Amino acid sequence: MALWGGIEAGGTKFVCAVGTAPDKLSAEIRIPTTTPDETLGQVVEFFQQQQALHGEIEAIGIGAFGPVDVNPDSSKFGWFLNTPKPGWQQVDFVGLVKRELGVRVGFDTDVNAAALGEHRWGNAQGIENFIYLTVGTGIGGGGMIGGKLIHGLLHPEMGHILIPHDRSADPFPGSCPFHQNCLEGLASGFAMEKRWGQKGVSLPADHPAWALEARYLAVGLVNYIFTLSPQRIILGGGVMEQKQLFPMVREQVLEQLGSYLDVPAITQNIDSYIVPPGLGSHAGLAGAFALALAMAE
Amino acid sequence: MALWGGIEAGGTKFVCAVGTAPDKLSAEIRIPTTTPDETLGQVVEFFQQQQALHGEIEAIGIGAFGPVDVNPDSSKFGWFLNTPKPGWQQVDFVGLVKRELGVRVGFDTDVNAAALGEHRWGNAQGIENFIYLTVGTGIGGGGMIGGKLIHGLLHPEMGHILIPHDRSADPFPGSCPFHQNCLEGLASGFAMEKRWGQKGVSLPADHPAWALEARYLAVGLVNYIFTLSPQRIILGGGVMEQKQLFPMVREQVLEQLGSYLDVPAITQNIDSYIVPPGLGSHAGLAGAFALALAMAE
Repeated sequence: MALWGGIEAGGTKFVCAVGTAPDKLSAEIRIPTTTPDETLGQVVEFFQQQQALHGEIEAIGIGAFGPVDVNPDSSKFGWFLNTPKPGWQQVDFVGLVKRELGVRVGFDTDVNAAALGEHRWGNAQGIENFIYLTVGTGIGGGGMIGGKLIHGLLHPEMGHILIPHDRSADPFPGSCPFHQNCLEGLASGFAMEKRWGQKGVSLPADHPAWALEARYLAVGLVNYIFTLSPQRIILGGGVMEQKQLFPMVREQVLEQLGSYLDVPAITQNIDSYIVPPGLGSHAGLAGAFALALAMAE
Repeated sequence: MALWGGIEAGGTKFVCAVGTAPDKLSAEIRIPTTTPDETLGQVVEFFQQQQALHGEIEAIGIGAFGPVDVNPDSSKFGWFLNTPKPGWQQVDFVGLVKRELGVRVGFDTDVNAAALGEHRWGNAQGIENFIYLTVGTGIGGGGMIGGKLIHGLLHPEMGHILIPHDRSADPFPGSCPFHQNCLEGLASGFAMEKRWGQKGVSLPADHPAWALEARYLAVGLVNYIFTLSPQRIILGGGVMEQKQLFPMVREQVLEQLGSYLDVPAITQNIDSYIVPPGLGSHAGLAGAFALALAMAE
C-alpha cells in the first residue's frame, strides 16, 4: 500500500509521521520548534530515513502555523511570512521539503489542515460550510466555504477579531502583542495564564475563569456566524479539552445571538452545532495526511 | 435581443426593471414596500404588463432584504423568513413570481446580488474573494469566496457582529433591537440619526460624527479581514455616499490591523483595497440582472 507523510508544524513542536493512513502510522516523531535550520533539518532527516527504509513516499502534507503563503500561484508559496516567531520569517518551508525529499507537497495552515481532516474523517463529513477553531496557546481558525478551504488574500487569522471588552468586569488588558485585547488577547490559553497567574488546566472547573472564557469565545463564534453562516463549528485545541466549556459556550452563543437568527440548526440543535473535533487532538496530523492525499486526487 | 428582469427588493422600496442589460432598460418602476399583498401585487402587475408589451422575459433575478431562504434545496427557497418587517414573515416571494409570471427566477440577498453585479460589471471583476458591504439604514454584507457567493446555513448577516464600544467616548447605547450595540446598532444610518438627532446627510463633513463612524466601520472591516481574508472590500449604501468617509475608514483599518497583516495589497494599496461600488447606486439592480443572467448559464 502507498505510503504518505504528514507534518503538523506548530509553534512549539513539529509532529512528523508516515503511514498508509493517519490511523495506520508506521513511524512518528516529535521535534521541538527551535531554529528553522535545526528543526527543518531534523524533519528532513526523519523522512529521508523513512524513504531509505520503505521506499517512495507518495506525497507529504503540511499544516503550518502562520502567517504562511498558501497561494499556489505565488512565488512564495509554502513560505513562512512575517511570523512573530524569531528566525522563522521568510523561510521557504515547502521548497526545502520538495528539494531535499523529492516528493509532492500539499500545504495549508494548521487550522485549515485540521478542518480538512475533520471534513474527511471527523465531525465535518458531508458538511460544505463550517469553521474549525483552535483555542490553545493562541486562537486560530480555518474551515470550508462551498466545500473549499477558506483562502483569500492570505488566509484567515480569525483569532485576531476585535470584540467587546468590559474592563470593569475584566480589567486584564489583554495579551496580544499586536491588538492587545482582540479575541486571542482575551481568550487564548496564554491570556488565561497571564490573567489568572496560572495555567487554565490548573484552574478548577467551577472557577469564574471559565464563565468569562465561555463569554469571550461565544462573542467570537457569534461574529463568525454572522459573517459566514457556517453549518457547524468545531472547537479544538488545548483549552477546549476542558469539556465543561462546551455547554457554557453553547448557552452564551444562544444568548448573544439575541433571537435574531431563528434557525433550528442553531436554536434547537446547539449541541450538534458547536462540537469538539471528531479526531480529537489528532485532527492536525490527520489533516496533514488529508493534504497529502489531496495531492494524488 | 433577449429580455431580462430584475427586482431589487428593499425594506423601503422595490425597484423592478426589464431590459436587455442593466444599462439598457426598457422599463423601470419603484414600488413602496408596504404589505406583501400590495407590494408584490404591483410587482407582478408590472412584469405582466411588460410581458404583454414585449413577449417573453427569459428570467427574473431578485436581490432581497433578509433574512431569506437562499438554499435551492430547501422547501422554503425564496421565502422571507423571520424578518422584523411586519407582515413579511414566511412569505413565499419566489413561488409567487414563478407562478404568476411563468418565468425562471434567480434569487439571493440584496447584498449578494450587489456583489454579483460588482463581480460581473463593477469593481470586483476577476476577483474571487471579496466582500460587498452596504452601509445604509442598516448594515448588510455579502460577497464571494472562491468565486462563489457566500452562503451557508442561511446567509451572512455581517452587520450584526459584536464590536468594542467605548461608552465613555460614545455614550449612545446603540439602536439594534436585537443586539443594541452591534456594528449595525452603532454605525448604520439609523444609528447615526438616533445618536445625533439628525440624518447623517445633514451633518457637515467635519462633524465628529464621521470620525466615529469611520472608526466603527473600520473595526467591522478588520474583523471581516481576519475572518475571510478578502482580496477587496466594496463599501456601498447611502452612508458611504459621504465620500469623505473613504480615506478615514482606510486610515483606521490600517491603524487597527496593528501591523499584523503585512500584506502589500492592504498596506501599500489601501486605496484600491477599500473602494466604492463601480456601479454606484445601481449595483443592487444590476446584481438582480446578474442573478437572472446566471439562470441561463
